[in-house]
Amino acid sequence: MPSDIEIARAAKLKPIVEIAAKAGVPEDALHLHGKHIAKIDDRFIAELPKRQNAKLVLVTAISPTPAGEGKTTTTVGLGDALNHIGEKAVMCLREPSLGPVFGVKGGAAGGGHAQVVPMEQINLHFTGDFHAITSANNLLAALVDNSLYWGNPLNIDPRRIVFRRVLDMNDRTLRQIISGVGAPTNGYTREAGFDITVASEIMAVFCLARDLKDLEERIARIVVAYTPDKKPITAKDVDAQGSLCVLLRDAMRPNLVQSIDGSPVFIHGGPFANIAHGCNSVIATTTAMKLADWTVTEAGFGADLGAEKFMDIKCRFAGLAPDAVVIVATVRALKMHGGMAKTDLSTENVEALKTGLVNLGRHIENVKKFGVPVVVAINHFYADTDAEIETLQTAVKADFGVDAVICRHWAEGAKGAEGLARAVVDLVGRQASDFRPLYPDEMPLLQKVETIAKEIYRADKVQASAAIKKQLKEWEEAGYGKFPVCIAKTQNSFSADPTAYGAPTGHTLPIREVRLSAGAGFIVVICGDLMTMPGLPKVPASANIKLLEDGTIDGIA
Amino acid sequence: MPSDIEIARAAKLKPIVEIAAKAGVPEDALHLHGKHIAKIDDRFIAELPKRQNAKLVLVTAISPTPAGEGKTTTTVGLGDALNHIGEKAVMCLREPSLGPVFGVKGGAAGGGHAQVVPMEQINLHFTGDFHAITSANNLLAALVDNSLYWGNPLNIDPRRIVFRRVLDMNDRTLRQIISGVGAPTNGYTREAGFDITVASEIMAVFCLARDLKDLEERIARIVVAYTPDKKPITAKDVDAQGSLCVLLRDAMRPNLVQSIDGSPVFIHGGPFANIAHGCNSVIATTTAMKLADWTVTEAGFGADLGAEKFMDIKCRFAGLAPDAVVIVATVRALKMHGGMAKTDLSTENVEALKTGLVNLGRHIENVKKFGVPVVVAINHFYADTDAEIETLQTAVKADFGVDAVICRHWAEGAKGAEGLARAVVDLVGRQASDFRPLYPDEMPLLQKVETIAKEIYRADKVQASAAIKKQLKEWEEAGYGKFPVCIAKTQNSFSADPTAYGAPTGHTLPIREVRLSAGAGFIVVICGDLMTMPGLPKVPASANIKLLEDGTIDGIA
Repeated sequence: MPSDIEIARAAKLKPIVEIAAKAGVPEDALHLHGKHIAKIDDRFIAELPKRQNAKLVLVTAISPTPAGEGKTTTTVGLGDALNHIGEKAVMCLREPSLGPVFGVKGGAAGGGHAQVVPMEQINLHFTGDFHAITSANNLLAALVDNSLYWGNPLNIDPRRIVFRRVLDMNDRTLRQIISGVGAPTNGYTREAGFDITVASEIMAVFCLARDLKDLEERIARIVVAYTPDKKPITAKDVDAQGSLCVLLRDAMRPNLVQSIDGSPVFIHGGPFANIAHGCNSVIATTTAMKLADWTVTEAGFGADLGAEKFMDIKCRFAGLAPDAVVIVATVRALKMHGGMAKTDLSTENVEALKTGLVNLGRHIENVKKFGVPVVVAINHFYADTDAEIETLQTAVKADFGVDAVICRHWAEGAKGAEGLARAVVDLVGRQASDFRPLYPDEMPLLQKVETIAKEIYRADKVQASAAIKKQLKEWEEAGYGKFPVCIAKTQNSFSADPTAYGAPTGHTLPIREVRLSAGAGFIVVICGDLMTMPGLPKVPASANIKLLEDGTIDGIA
Repeated sequence: MPSDIEIARAAKLKPIVEIAAKAGVPEDALHLHGKHIAKIDDRFIAELPKRQNAKLVLVTAISPTPAGEGKTTTTVGLGDALNHIGEKAVMCLREPSLGPVFGVKGGAAGGGHAQVVPMEQINLHFTGDFHAITSANNLLAALVDNSLYWGNPLNIDPRRIVFRRVLDMNDRTLRQIISGVGAPTNGYTREAGFDITVASEIMAVFCLARDLKDLEERIARIVVAYTPDKKPITAKDVDAQGSLCVLLRDAMRPNLVQSIDGSPVFIHGGPFANIAHGCNSVIATTTAMKLADWTVTEAGFGADLGAEKFMDIKCRFAGLAPDAVVIVATVRALKMHGGMAKTDLSTENVEALKTGLVNLGRHIENVKKFGVPVVVAINHFYADTDAEIETLQTAVKADFGVDAVICRHWAEGAKGAEGLARAVVDLVGRQASDFRPLYPDEMPLLQKVETIAKEIYRADKVQASAAIKKQLKEWEEAGYGKFPVCIAKTQNSFSADPTAYGAPTGHTLPIREVRLSAGAGFIVVICGDLMTMPGLPKVPASANIKLLEDGTIDGIA
């Protein structure tokens, strides 16, 4: 069996000009980055008319396990298959972060015969969007400390600077630092820290902004610090929004690449799915919807986090309404939810599968609460048995009235996902979406958290200290009450306990901390440990990444 | 009089494909970044034959003053003029850093009618080279702390980690930090710090490497830390060189742009001229010399620093020999060297000019010591009087036997520098270069410093503590004795005192500190204050940089 990288290298890439033309984008609207990557000009996008009946399909998944589900792969496979059966589809994915590439994961651009290319560039600097976001974030951070340094005209409380610096790197030693050490010319000594770039509020803002004007307004609103009497100080107060927009102008143009099957794919933006909303940029999604009949996109982690935030944050802000949701599951992963160890997954175990099905079932029920039709994609692995697959398909249909379609895009490419593509087309034709977010803007903040906790996580209650409740009240009084909430909790379980597989009930959702993302426009609610700057493992992926004699890159994915 | 930015915007840019074709680079050897910027493929470069009689011209300057000299502008003007008089010239410049763009300076891409375009992209992220260098630097730094974290198998002394992190940003509060604060999972607490990216040893290595293989070998040799008994630990010891090369592969391809007059210009690499050698990449220079009869390049700061390092470091490593040196001077700046205040410079003052001429005279004498023919370019300003210009030309000819040519490229473009171009062609035809570095590889390190101090700076002696002498001896014993020295001192004077204008003598060069750059291949000798991380001013340039309604960038340069 060829590896992902062998398949990617064997792929004959078409010139991106050709892919763009197929998607209706003329050459003079492209900003080329080599022969196989292009950014789409913002003026071209602004002038594109809205498309009647553009359909939006979200690909999400069961609660992730170490067995792997294949959300990106399925997004690519479904898009390719839609194009194969004569529909016109464009896919929208998130950009990978450099941190994991050199840390644990290697690359992130799909897999097998459902990949996006050129794989190495996408996984490395790509078109520099994350570098632009890093620069913008760190310019804003420097401007805050600089204002403090030059006489502190804004009355910044150095203990209450909340905007952190970022690097697109896994570097645990920067999580918590003391900055401004040494000479007085080094500024005021204070506690500070770095997050990974995907956790930057600039990343969230970048992905939610509808255009450059919206970007500037959102940046201006970012709260960077407080005065000693807790009055917010914003990016506008340090005159940052203009420069940050200049740094982000080119990055805001969505990046067009291709799947190895030749479908047009936007890869643009990549906010964390915990501290932020975990979806590609609004601009990429809305552009795709102007160009194609079908836009297939994904959201980070399982449906409890990714799909919920896609609906309640991204769609709410962008005025989008998904037409269908695909929930990806694997027999292997469901068997892990049913209690099997990872090492045993190649053994047939219908009972474990039946037990684990509760996880999938709950995600189906949850997604239906948003009024959107659902279909399940069973991402096929070679060790799956007929008995397991039949059990899964039958149960999903019987218990939840939903089709579960076998997909073999990893091994077979577009052809392997044709069944799924036809099921999606059929579903959307048959069942109109009646999309509604889970809660209205007007609901008080704590009640929004409680609604998600009860409706989606099935917790009995939400635990919040008096201080947290007071903070939420203060934000409501300061005009932030209409914000949606962005819950950061473990992706491995519906509950806050990462070891609680399956479909736990009766648990409590403990709020540890709340943070205001005034630019992004949401309140981050942190439940459990939140890692905003990962570390490198004992043997980082970097140790095996190298250039070969002929200049090709070895060791990524 | 139109401003730089107005001239740049009014310029009709040719497609870079056309500029490349003129320089002999076919379209399929280009990696396009939009319509007006391209990287040249490394395999194409490797296969290009060496050009017989390729000539290399260095543009350097008198000791810089606040009056401005115009080195980049003259480099562009000279190249344009060479092309105008029927020669074939390519220019090589350094890439600007983002830090100064948002700090004090605005942009850096020449000026008037002698500019490189597209100006905004060049001054912002350009092709992402500096971002790649930042990422590579910070991955290496993270790998060092990660090795310490996971059981410290290399026996790294946390007090002796010498490799610092970088950001391409002016951020004084990061100069000196305590990292690894907080939980044990945040690593070991230690003193650390950030430099600006141009001060990274990765930047110096990037600019000195002949090809990717050389790059990998140099990276492997970088000393990142020491054991408690002072044994060096290198980048190779943390398995970094492969990943760093992968991060730098695309960046290593030289960037081709155009002057507003349509000449091909490489802009590639940009190491600091204090802690490093201050010249564009060896790869860009050697590529230009394969493509054109004339390669015109520049080096940072005045000739005492820039030209000396160009000769003793860059040319030594790359096997290059310059055919001529152009020393740029202005009447205004020489009047400052003669004691005038900046505010009075528009007044004619022949006496001040005569006094200030000593600065230019000494730079001429110095450059001649390298065996390279010299011509002076007088970069004309509108307030220069005939009497002043005549005095200057006559004195330079009489006292130093060198031509001083008036240049008006700022106001008139190529036409304004035709005289200079003809003078350079004439000089090179008439006077063969007999290039030799100032000192041989074999000279002991301290003696190398003394040689530069006496021959170039005209100091009476070098002051070095016993500890510094011992350190230099130790490095000689460890095999680093053949390295050239890279002196970091103020650019404003021949001496270590920035207020000593003109041509001071009888001074002492005080060595404050020495550092090993084992990857770059030189010893940094720090004399006086060394700023490797600038701060932002009270009103940073960023406050006036913004996007206009139509998406154009306002406030850069």
